[in-house]
Amino acid sequence: MAAYALGWRDVSGAADPAASEGKGLRQALAVLSAEAVGAEGKVAGPAAVAVELVHAFSLVHDDIMDGDPVRRRRAAVWCSYGVGPAVLAGDALHALAVRSLAEAPGERVSAAVRRLSVALTSLVRGQADDLRFESLPWRGPGAVGPDAYGVMAEQKTGSLLGCAAALGAELGGAPAGTVAAFDGAGRHLGVAFQVVDDLLGVWGDPEVTGKPVHGDLRHRKKTYPVLAALAGGGPAARELAVLLEGAEPLEGAVASRAACLVEEAGGLAAARVQARERLDAARACLAGVRLEAVAVRELEVLVAFLLDRTS
Amino acid sequence: MAAYALGWRDVSGAADPAASEGKGLRQALAVLSAEAVGAEGKVAGPAAVAVELVHAFSLVHDDIMDGDPVRRRRAAVWCSYGVGPAVLAGDALHALAVRSLAEAPGERVSAAVRRLSVALTSLVRGQADDLRFESLPWRGPGAVGPDAYGVMAEQKTGSLLGCAAALGAELGGAPAGTVAAFDGAGRHLGVAFQVVDDLLGVWGDPEVTGKPVHGDLRHRKKTYPVLAALAGGGPAARELAVLLEGAEPLEGAVASRAACLVEEAGGLAAARVQARERLDAARACLAGVRLEAVAVRELEVLVAFLLDRTS
Repeated sequence: MAAYALGWRDVSGAADPAASEGKGLRQALAVLSAEAVGAEGKVAGPAAVAVELVHAFSLVHDDIMDGDPVRRRRAAVWCSYGVGPAVLAGDALHALAVRSLAEAPGERVSAAVRRLSVALTSLVRGQADDLRFESLPWRGPGAVGPDAYGVMAEQKTGSLLGCAAALGAELGGAPAGTVAAFDGAGRHLGVAFQVVDDLLGVWGDPEVTGKPVHGDLRHRKKTYPVLAALAGGGPAARELAVLLEGAEPLEGAVASRAACLVEEAGGLAAARVQARERLDAARACLAGVRLEAVAVRELEVLVAFLLDRTS
Repeated sequence: MAAYALGWRDVSGAADPAASEGKGLRQALAVLSAEAVGAEGKVAGPAAVAVELVHAFSLVHDDIMDGDPVRRRRAAVWCSYGVGPAVLAGDALHALAVRSLAEAPGERVSAAVRRLSVALTSLVRGQADDLRFESLPWRGPGAVGPDAYGVMAEQKTGSLLGCAAALGAELGGAPAGTVAAFDGAGRHLGVAFQVVDDLLGVWGDPEVTGKPVHGDLRHRKKTYPVLAALAGGGPAARELAVLLEGAEPLEGAVASRAACLVEEAGGLAAARVQARERLDAARACLAGVRLEAVAVRELEVLVAFLLDRTS
């Protein structure tokens, strides 16, 4: 099941060269962060393994919680193997993540494991908030605003990206202030990444993303562009709220109308601003830190890929 | 959900003084092991917290996998809150377990976290084997024997008890050999504990255990006494195998008959021998180690409570 979740095998256990292993973003961030502080990238190996395993664990369990039947164009683990086995597969990935870092050599490992364990609790809290948001109203008292969404996204997505970057710096032997700077940068990057994900969930090309058109809208997911649109007020926001609050399925022309309203109410623009601001904040975190130019250029390529991606 | 799982709160979040917090076996083992190596019990505090949280996490997830609706005379977490939230609650307990140990002070913490992370992977493997055993035949090629069951029980139950004892010794400042001796002792104790659990699952008094009469038999669970009975051969074992292989529900008189057959085929006696042998093996692990007499006496009381318990 783990090999299936990681995109290495098909359901029968045979090699599956067509399956996606994912973007490998977190491991790249760990390795490049180590190089940026002047270490060899391979010192971040155990950190790269750990953060990818944590990511894989969270996808397996999140798909159960969200009832999501598809992941990377294949059946989700719970759909292929059943909910119980998928719970166990996620637990195994979670346990193995901690173990692969804890058993690494070096005197910085202890601090690295502590950092990973903190990120794991943040990740869970973020997922809990994301689930809780589902039952909150779209507007009025108790509604979720874009700021609350940002806090959730920083925990759910940012904490692990921050951890990946910080672990790379930590195992690369950087001083505490530099490690903290990488953590902060990774967190902001995580929110930017999540907001771009949200944009693709509304306006992404299904041919490229592999996800259904207007998928997040049809599932009435509380995403950044939608929440920002609602928070902006005005006639488009009010019409959008009525659609979202209604019981009617958000399919076809209704979903297209909703997407137009999100744009009209400023949700698309606000999301782009948010992604840009978070990217600037990430850069600001690292502004005072002396880094290796080659690795920084590669980090910039990685970041550009993340924010300009179409899938 | 975590407070509900730990027996501190009811479903609504109110204090629930009637709820059971469980036996607290793992935390007691950690504290007494620290005292046995001459340390103050409180140095094992972070270890005690960690192993109890791991235990709580495993119960929450195991109940989902086993479809078990009742835990400690209350609805299981997944029954009270839904499967998705219960997956998340287990993940939170898992993450918090590692974090509470990783953030403890002291130079032995790093080794302790490494040990906990190994125990977590063993625990998952044991649960995986337990689930896999369900689909294996009762007899003939590929059948599960009592020895394979012992290996599974050592991973599923023994690894965390061994970890609890070893962490107590580790944080108590014991040398490596002593820590390993506590680990071995705890592992054997864990198998003994599991076998006693199995005995209660067949012959326990429902008034005392709070579980249905012949519960494990009715669910056709592969437990030590049943597997030992089948492995013994003879007419009672053959009649038992036919009952277990059949499609007929194992209720009422049929379940009683099955329980009699397990006893007649030697399953009850074999389980008692196994528990006794594991207890002896646990004592043998610690035979060459210098320990504090007071703590050893308390450990003996704890062990006697575990093996002579009726619930």
